Amino acid sequence: MKVLDRKAPDFLYQQIVDFIEKQQRDGLLKPGDKLPSLRKLSKQLEISVPTVKQAYVELERQGRVCARPQSGYYLKAQQARTLQPRPNKWAGAKPVEVKCRSLIEQVYDAVHLPDTVALGISNPVHTHPPDKALARLMRSVISRVAEKAVSYGPSNGCPKLRMQLAFRYQEQGVAVNYQDMVITNGAQEALSIALQCVAEKGDVIAIESPCFFGLIELIESLGMKALEVYTCTEDGVSLSELEKTLQQYNVKACMFSTAINNPLGSLMTEEKRQSLVAMLEKHNIPLIEDDAYGDLYFEGVRPKPAQLYSEKGLVLTCSSFSKTAAPGYRIGWLIPGKYEEQAKRIKRAQSCSTPMLQQWTLTEYLLTGEYDRHLTVLRKKLIYNSERMRALIAEHFPSEVCISKPKGGSVLWVRCRSHVDTGDFFQEAIAQGVSFAPGRTFSPSGKYKNYMRISFGVQWCERVEEAIKTLGQLAFKYQEQALSA
Amino acid sequence: MKVLDRKAPDFLYQQIVDFIEKQQRDGLLKPGDKLPSLRKLSKQLEISVPTVKQAYVELERQGRVCARPQSGYYLKAQQARTLQPRPNKWAGAKPVEVKCRSLIEQVYDAVHLPDTVALGISNPVHTHPPDKALARLMRSVISRVAEKAVSYGPSNGCPKLRMQLAFRYQEQGVAVNYQDMVITNGAQEALSIALQCVAEKGDVIAIESPCFFGLIELIESLGMKALEVYTCTEDGVSLSELEKTLQQYNVKACMFSTAINNPLGSLMTEEKRQSLVAMLEKHNIPLIEDDAYGDLYFEGVRPKPAQLYSEKGLVLTCSSFSKTAAPGYRIGWLIPGKYEEQAKRIKRAQSCSTPMLQQWTLTEYLLTGEYDRHLTVLRKKLIYNSERMRALIAEHFPSEVCISKPKGGSVLWVRCRSHVDTGDFFQEAIAQGVSFAPGRTFSPSGKYKNYMRISFGVQWCERVEEAIKTLGQLAFKYQEQALSA
Repeated sequence: MKVLDRKAPDFLYQQIVDFIEKQQRDGLLKPGDKLPSLRKLSKQLEISVPTVKQAYVELERQGRVCARPQSGYYLKAQQARTLQPRPNKWAGAKPVEVKCRSLIEQVYDAVHLPDTVALGISNPVHTHPPDKALARLMRSVISRVAEKAVSYGPSNGCPKLRMQLAFRYQEQGVAVNYQDMVITNGAQEALSIALQCVAEKGDVIAIESPCFFGLIELIESLGMKALEVYTCTEDGVSLSELEKTLQQYNVKACMFSTAINNPLGSLMTEEKRQSLVAMLEKHNIPLIEDDAYGDLYFEGVRPKPAQLYSEKGLVLTCSSFSKTAAPGYRIGWLIPGKYEEQAKRIKRAQSCSTPMLQQWTLTEYLLTGEYDRHLTVLRKKLIYNSERMRALIAEHFPSEVCISKPKGGSVLWVRCRSHVDTGDFFQEAIAQGVSFAPGRTFSPSGKYKNYMRISFGVQWCERVEEAIKTLGQLAFKYQEQALSA
Repeated sequence: MKVLDRKAPDFLYQQIVDFIEKQQRDGLLKPGDKLPSLRKLSKQLEISVPTVKQAYVELERQGRVCARPQSGYYLKAQQARTLQPRPNKWAGAKPVEVKCRSLIEQVYDAVHLPDTVALGISNPVHTHPPDKALARLMRSVISRVAEKAVSYGPSNGCPKLRMQLAFRYQEQGVAVNYQDMVITNGAQEALSIALQCVAEKGDVIAIESPCFFGLIELIESLGMKALEVYTCTEDGVSLSELEKTLQQYNVKACMFSTAINNPLGSLMTEEKRQSLVAMLEKHNIPLIEDDAYGDLYFEGVRPKPAQLYSEKGLVLTCSSFSKTAAPGYRIGWLIPGKYEEQAKRIKRAQSCSTPMLQQWTLTEYLLTGEYDRHLTVLRKKLIYNSERMRALIAEHFPSEVCISKPKGGSVLWVRCRSHVDTGDFFQEAIAQGVSFAPGRTFSPSGKYKNYMRISFGVQWCERVEEAIKTLGQLAFKYQEQALSA
């Protein structure tokens, strides 16, 4: 039997992996089945035992088989089909006025519904909340300065916190002066100020497609227009599509997450990020960088902020502690590039200043090194949750469903068959005690109806598993309805 | 000697008051002098002793004389010339684009300058900060729910706080549903959201003249235009001028403080406030009510919010705890009238939510009744400070200076001679360790150059008295320069 090709560019062990996969696809191997012993397959394929072993280890690493001591290797339950960069041609997009969509409101509201597993909101901190550590630090801060907290703080925020944050950027090679930074009411206010620094009502803002609905709502609230740019599941926004877009439309600014897009979990390479900044600065177009998820990378080192590559001061970096430590503290920041003066003025005019108590507490959190230790654990738990939830969705959803393999963050982007509209079963899911974010909320032009965003920013428990089963049943039901319609 | 005229329309005792005042002006009586005894003046003026007594009591009530037991009545230090409704004709105003003025920035910056007596910012809480009570409540809150504070709160704020606030409005007869309210990052964010609910870039917003520079900056930051309407030192915005303005310009909304304008300290009568709302709702023009100072009235009962008189839902009420209890907590609120949906959406889109810890603490503060007890003391201290600072300014400034007699709040509005530009000596004042707010920052069209706003929201001490003396010396110096120029 001709299985392996010693002249092929793929490693032999990889060919064995493919062979096992094909047997599974052809129904010759089923979940729970024992794989042939190392010796048996070695003979059958005329290959060395260590090479077969290497293939089995790789399959185990991928979470597709499990080794049982003194017994052998077993095929695990059905594995996730990974969402690939979309093969179908990107049809392009036009700038559209963003309309209020009540679906987004329902997604937000579901966070505070009792007895509902909130998989609709991206809340990585929920996986590993540093609540005890922060409560301890806050008590200590309060015992010293609670009375001072009653007074106005500086409009652009606590200088010590800005210094600590600036150090972190400096460690990455970014020359940030803490005096230019503005502390904001979460990243959302930072993004709002950044947009108002560079654009006004009616202007066109290029966004990733798909794009977090919070950004779409923000653009709507400022009366600006959103223009979607094709974004790859792997490495983010397409530069060739962006170049075309810039030639075709009068884009006033771009608002991208180059390090961990929400909902895709995509991550630009450093080279691509550098090219992006160069391209935009060549066109004198500001880049508003939503870097809220940058610390939640799954592999390697922390992605560098696009700010690093700015030469003209046209990159405005927005981030916060909301995805990494304390969403309820509402502390974010803006590095406004050359728009420093405008940013400070808008902050002061529109919300005066940001509460100091939370800023002092987070300053301590950074100073003690606890924040970095916390991030290390949080990332590990998120990686674990990500794989576990991918496997669970693969097990309980129709086999046609494809699931993203995120490079960071806390959400999966799940594609159902093209006739399914996931918005249709949102209410039914809520009634059954589980929320998710319907795909269409991620596109102002109404794309992604057959997608859903499911958060793995959870503390893993049986209720979460039940919730995924519930969603899976709904996916089956609505897929059948769509097919029979 | 012909002093009293029994046929004049003025009461006899009032004529005696005028007589004493004239003697003082003529230099026949000086600060510290003893007034004639009751009996002596009664004989001299051929009038009954009780009538003279009534005049002296009135002078005492006005703070111009003091009674010393077993000794008699003494003339106090020079008294304030009260700023009257401007006699000169109001020339009208045009809508103007608000330009960033660095002077405002300098006023704000001076708050955080060390060794500077910050009389430039309106901070009534500084007079009587409830820092210990709030610190105690916050410690108690933290001991119970610090860990919960890490998580997202509802976008429109803590329901219990909204309920407590709604009760307070209901007690005043205003039908407020707590579910419609939005908790904001201070009144400033409430005003920002309110403006965005009813108007957009380029729209004309009618404001009081003079008007708090924070509101002018807000209008600027949203790209709207400000149109000043003549506002009386006594009872606020002129309805006849407003009516003319509405006929002449396409006013999109009004933003007024009918209860305690900042900087005038003026207060509308209930009837006038009711007429204002009726007039605006007739024209279908929304009224954004900045009610941040409404709790800081000096006489009678709390002024009713304009919200009470709204029949069409066109009144949006903005307020906060920043002028009454805890500016640093950044907790305000918006009662959005019929714009409930827009308000909630803008809040969510632009800053997501407001920190819960401060909301919980303030909820307790309301529930325990401590807030109301605190307000009673705060108001008393403010009344005291107001009179004391008026007397001090009268004593140390040129005699041509007129001083407002505020009906609440924490600022005095001081008019120098018309050739003086108070902005000219701002820097010199800062160098000498005292800040104030130059008049021109209160008008986008550059009126009020010869005015200054001086805050009496201070803890009274010698440094404050020295600061006023310093300002007085500068006022003298620049008046002489202006006259000799």
